[in-house]
Amino acid sequence: MTGTPTAFTAGDYEARMRRAAEAATAAGLDGLLVAPGPDLVWLTGYRPVETERLTLLVLRAGQDPVLVVPTLEAPDAAAAAPTLTLRDWTDGKDPYEATASLVDAGGRFGVSDNGWALHLLGLQKRLPDSRYVALTDALPMLRAVKDAAELERLAAAGEAADATYEEIRKVPFGGRRETDVAADIADLLRQFGHSQVDFTIVASGPNGANPHHEAGDRVIERGDMVVLDFGGLKHGYGSDTSRTVHVGEPDAEEREVHDVVRAAQEAGVAAVRPGAACQDVDRAARAVVAEAGYGDRFIHRTGHGIGVTTHEPPYMIEGEEQPLVPGMCFSVEPGIYLPGRFGVRIEDIVTVTEEGGWRLNTTSREMAIVD
Amino acid sequence: MTGTPTAFTAGDYEARMRRAAEAATAAGLDGLLVAPGPDLVWLTGYRPVETERLTLLVLRAGQDPVLVVPTLEAPDAAAAAPTLTLRDWTDGKDPYEATASLVDAGGRFGVSDNGWALHLLGLQKRLPDSRYVALTDALPMLRAVKDAAELERLAAAGEAADATYEEIRKVPFGGRRETDVAADIADLLRQFGHSQVDFTIVASGPNGANPHHEAGDRVIERGDMVVLDFGGLKHGYGSDTSRTVHVGEPDAEEREVHDVVRAAQEAGVAAVRPGAACQDVDRAARAVVAEAGYGDRFIHRTGHGIGVTTHEPPYMIEGEEQPLVPGMCFSVEPGIYLPGRFGVRIEDIVTVTEEGGWRLNTTSREMAIVD
Repeated sequence: MTGTPTAFTAGDYEARMRRAAEAATAAGLDGLLVAPGPDLVWLTGYRPVETERLTLLVLRAGQDPVLVVPTLEAPDAAAAAPTLTLRDWTDGKDPYEATASLVDAGGRFGVSDNGWALHLLGLQKRLPDSRYVALTDALPMLRAVKDAAELERLAAAGEAADATYEEIRKVPFGGRRETDVAADIADLLRQFGHSQVDFTIVASGPNGANPHHEAGDRVIERGDMVVLDFGGLKHGYGSDTSRTVHVGEPDAEEREVHDVVRAAQEAGVAAVRPGAACQDVDRAARAVVAEAGYGDRFIHRTGHGIGVTTHEPPYMIEGEEQPLVPGMCFSVEPGIYLPGRFGVRIEDIVTVTEEGGWRLNTTSREMAIVD
Repeated sequence: MTGTPTAFTAGDYEARMRRAAEAATAAGLDGLLVAPGPDLVWLTGYRPVETERLTLLVLRAGQDPVLVVPTLEAPDAAAAAPTLTLRDWTDGKDPYEATASLVDAGGRFGVSDNGWALHLLGLQKRLPDSRYVALTDALPMLRAVKDAAELERLAAAGEAADATYEEIRKVPFGGRRETDVAADIADLLRQFGHSQVDFTIVASGPNGANPHHEAGDRVIERGDMVVLDFGGLKHGYGSDTSRTVHVGEPDAEEREVHDVVRAAQEAGVAAVRPGAACQDVDRAARAVVAEAGYGDRFIHRTGHGIGVTTHEPPYMIEGEEQPLVPGMCFSVEPGIYLPGRFGVRIEDIVTVTEEGGWRLNTTSREMAIVD
């Protein structure tokens, strides 16, 4: 495993904030209002819990970034982002007033997708002539193109997920509950350096036909297909990989469905190259599934971006015409779901290079036979 | 410790949804739009992860509740809330359109505080003539008055937090990092039945002067005051308690400050009775601190409600005139913070009874001497 990467510097964060403010201007916005969560972590390194107390980064081109922060949390904010100007407010005062004084009352602002409705409504009330647009709509690609230091972290997270898969193949499946295997996966992810485990899907037999089944009390049986899909954060960046294993020998249909998904995943990755559209990746994978007669059983988009979160733009979905750019990182994860019977999904994180798609997950995509 | 409580039934959830819809009508709203998170858990028992994919419960008086849900997650939603009508939407379709078709285009709606700005903006765009108000503003007391089954859970969570405190007093403090003691606290909370640990504050020496310091690399020293403040969820309901301990014998000033906070906490709890205002609890605690000359060192509100979250209305703060009602549950947690030196905070969860405040945390509030 790789060691701890060099921490991002105040200069790195300042460069990101400047770039974001400039992108906002280019998109016709008067500024960005950034809530706690992935945008704020990416822009400043500061990771407070989002609560009813307003914390908000105000970015405007050509002006110093200002962080509106509860007085209570100002020391933590100052420690996490020492070069940032803080505007603190105390319990009982109006934090929207503090924010309003920083921005143009008739402006148009990009706001973090995950900012709370409570806070957006507070701003809309205080600044009734301002307009707001979600950052995903205004600047969907703000965090999409990763730099070398980010790719290094994503690769390390992918390695850790791969190491987890290699180990989990060795544990007994038959006769244990899905939740038991899920707990093993979580332990392994942490053992391989994850600070946060976001999901540990173990979907056995008919549960595999529900793409978002997590893990339940079902006892895994001999003869089951089992979809494994897990990830989280290591050094602040995400992992996300899926493999479908079989308890004992599969039958002909199970092999066939797995082969189709594997070919679809290959086709999706093969479609990755600079200048292709996001939807081309989806189309390539979907065509293979449709060709095999399972088109109506592939019931989700082909992929999603990954970075400081495990789900973010760009999305590999029909209608997304955004061109791929070197440094983008996203999942390619087609699946086939047969209600009441089983499901298969295969997923790698792929980054766009000048030469095409480069997988950050490299474990075998053959169907593994487990005990 | 108490055993697992009887699960809430579909009937319990239906009664809550009906009451919420009626409260909305009484407040002049045309409905409630409930996002994943505490409101949705409380109303339906369904606990999805909030993501960029819209999940939204639409409640209107006199009409059946409808859950707008991604097709992917419909099976989980149906399993969690089997009696709920689902309106599912697939990737690539417009979920706001699906929602808009359910509500009055010119209506006024209450929305969950923590609903994503992305989704509120999506609704505002689709329903430009509708108006929205945060649930905390529209129906601040919706979840504030707990019924007997909820109080039972909150009491069990409080007992588990108290058991954690009794055990943590026995571990060594001096010479260990704050994060080591915090890890012990998290382990104990889980051992005593918490499914989720929300915070484990271990704030030693000067770190104690920052009320929201979590736990860091600082090695705890002999002679340190250490603020402990921890909580999470057990059986879906919250715990939250604080005690301030001392490594070895305290000096006279440390004793004095601790005595003041303890007296302030007593005064706050003593002010709890049906019909008193929330701000009366704050005033009672604050008066004791001010009287002792530390008024400007008590830099946060006196308390917050607790239920399916560890932070919710009602808030014990100047200006909050909401009268206390039997069944309300909230923290009473005054503190004194001396920058660069130390802090003291003492916190119990208190429920309002006809006879006054009843503590759900009952460990000693004397300053414990630890090793």
